[in-house]
Amino acid sequence: MDTTALDASYFDEQLYVKHVAVDNVIFGYHDRELKVLLQRPNYQQKWTVAGGYVRKTESVEEAAHNIAFLRTGLKDLFLEQFRSFGNPSRTKEDWLAIKKSFENAGVQPPPDSWILDYSVSIAFYTLTEFSLVSVQKGPFDEALEWWPVAQLPPMMFDHALIIEEALKALRRDIYHYPIGYELLPRKFTLPEIHSLYETILGKTLDNRNFTRKLMSSGIIKKLDEIRSIGAHRSPYLYKFEKKKYDAALKNGIFLGF
Amino acid sequence: MDTTALDASYFDEQLYVKHVAVDNVIFGYHDRELKVLLQRPNYQQKWTVAGGYVRKTESVEEAAHNIAFLRTGLKDLFLEQFRSFGNPSRTKEDWLAIKKSFENAGVQPPPDSWILDYSVSIAFYTLTEFSLVSVQKGPFDEALEWWPVAQLPPMMFDHALIIEEALKALRRDIYHYPIGYELLPRKFTLPEIHSLYETILGKTLDNRNFTRKLMSSGIIKKLDEIRSIGAHRSPYLYKFEKKKYDAALKNGIFLGF
Repeated sequence: MDTTALDASYFDEQLYVKHVAVDNVIFGYHDRELKVLLQRPNYQQKWTVAGGYVRKTESVEEAAHNIAFLRTGLKDLFLEQFRSFGNPSRTKEDWLAIKKSFENAGVQPPPDSWILDYSVSIAFYTLTEFSLVSVQKGPFDEALEWWPVAQLPPMMFDHALIIEEALKALRRDIYHYPIGYELLPRKFTLPEIHSLYETILGKTLDNRNFTRKLMSSGIIKKLDEIRSIGAHRSPYLYKFEKKKYDAALKNGIFLGF
Repeated sequence: MDTTALDASYFDEQLYVKHVAVDNVIFGYHDRELKVLLQRPNYQQKWTVAGGYVRKTESVEEAAHNIAFLRTGLKDLFLEQFRSFGNPSRTKEDWLAIKKSFENAGVQPPPDSWILDYSVSIAFYTLTEFSLVSVQKGPFDEALEWWPVAQLPPMMFDHALIIEEALKALRRDIYHYPIGYELLPRKFTLPEIHSLYETILGKTLDNRNFTRKLMSSGIIKKLDEIRSIGAHRSPYLYKFEKKKYDAALKNGIFLGF
């Protein structure tokens, strides 16, 4: 069942939790680019992050995983809840505009719908390697695209703020959790992991200091293998040390680059 | 208006946001002790953190500040949202028990109340100096007390988990934000701030390394004043550098003790 479609069943209080939405800022990384997956509903000019509602039979985490799965086909992504957003004015205005999407789709929300009233968004971010993903529009979306985090289109609701806060949380968390695992090939070079961290943090990291801190953390391991990428360029390959990596993911570490 | 009282008005959908609660883990520090403020509703054996509901005219942050104000009389406390909790089973069982508190107070929740259905808690933590606070029970509470974080009483709902997660968030945030400001006298000694950090982190911090990192961050400043606490003990006093402190609070720093 598609929790991200606009559907009359959302107004059924037996099925869905009123006043609560889940938004999932899906970040994608590939080759020095950090992007975010955005959707534009039918008949709308502005964009939203991937979002949906919460069925009464599921947890908010399950709802967020489900949203990521519906849009990317991927399960078990690194998923982190970073903040909830709730105030009287965050969605009202844009929902009045978006009603057109409902009506054109033959769905008439009740005039006293909570959607036009007070809506709390529980926001998550997740990470994926965008070149490996084929994205899947929702039935009421006109577009679903990866946008560079530094050049976002006009956003609905408070979704520009939600992305900004997600990015802040990601940039904080990357110092504490080895969240690069899913974004790199299984065997990677030091320049590759260095680029990943620089791109996510949006700043230059001293090469030697970065390598020293990363190696001393023990979460990556040098292999006895090289990759040939040119006559004079044959960098060593590295991989994550699964055991140390898992412990770091569970307990946190500090990668003080 | 007291948002933390159990009151028939909570069931009024015109006033309150259904399915949404706010919980505020109020930490108190004093002299090497870290405590948390807990309340025990009338006729109950188990305890809860300070909590309440969200009026449709206020933001979730306003609701959390209001809860802190009602229980401690303090405004403008350091307040941080750290996670929301939502799943089908987190509150149901204990709410069935707690109904007694309603009924004994002459308030009969409707049989189909959302309180017995699905409830999302948006959780915050806040910090205060507990020796300076006189706490104020809610009208439906039998007790409101400071408990040591290491020795909690039996907790209702998932509130033991909420406290555990709040403590994790506090211990993470203390590396990034100078949140000791409100917990120390305006002029303090190095042993005082050292004890504060050790107590919150629940571990020993090397004295010299701690002092060096703290001084190099620039957020505290040595004064030309001493405090006489004995014949051979006259430690220098320090204070926060307000400007650097505010910048660190806004942008984050890293206090890598």
